[in-house]
Amino acid sequence: MQRVGFVLKVKPDMLEEYKEIHRKVWPEMLEALSKAGWRNYSLFMREDGTLFGYVETPSWEEALSKMADTEINARWQTMMAPYFEGIGGKHADEGMLKLEEVFHLD
Amino acid sequence: MQRVGFVLKVKPDMLEEYKEIHRKVWPEMLEALSKAGWRNYSLFMREDGTLFGYVETPSWEEALSKMADTEINARWQTMMAPYFEGIGGKHADEGMLKLEEVFHLD
Repeated sequence: MQRVGFVLKVKPDMLEEYKEIHRKVWPEMLEALSKAGWRNYSLFMREDGTLFGYVETPSWEEALSKMADTEINARWQTMMAPYFEGIGGKHADEGMLKLEEVFHLD
Repeated sequence: MQRVGFVLKVKPDMLEEYKEIHRKVWPEMLEALSKAGWRNYSLFMREDGTLFGYVETPSWEEALSKMADTEINARWQTMMAPYFEGIGGKHADEGMLKLEEVFHLD
């Protein structure tokens, strides 16, 4: 199992809307994530909109590619694209910055 | 079990040293963290020194207070204090910024 940390940046004036949307993520999107191997997946937000993701998955590469193959992900990412800054309009799953794990304790 | 995400900032010119230290954290420090209920604890770093912590624990309040009660933590935090910026010289465990969890999928 790989542990992955990543970062994204939500536009400061869209934070509340972003949070609201994430309180009721489409069930089909949740199911697609689970099927693609996304486990114990959390998103944390700093007040300035910096978003930290943490996820455990058998393979990060496959977790991304399997989601990229789904129609529901394309719809979700197109809907969410306007919420992010700093990734040049790309979809979040193509613009997230993977972080280096510098410490772990089981 | 609570999931906690937090943020700290390491000084840009001390990143490599910070990482090196975290490849060989004192065994007594690891033992103290485990005893204080720190589970599945990871630190991720962005290239600019932004540090993202993720930890699972029965109680975040107790995880902090139990560590604060140990002599090893005082020694560790005093050693590490010069590595951080933006927390006014405080120890990291007193200056970390707890993040809001905005999404979770088991």
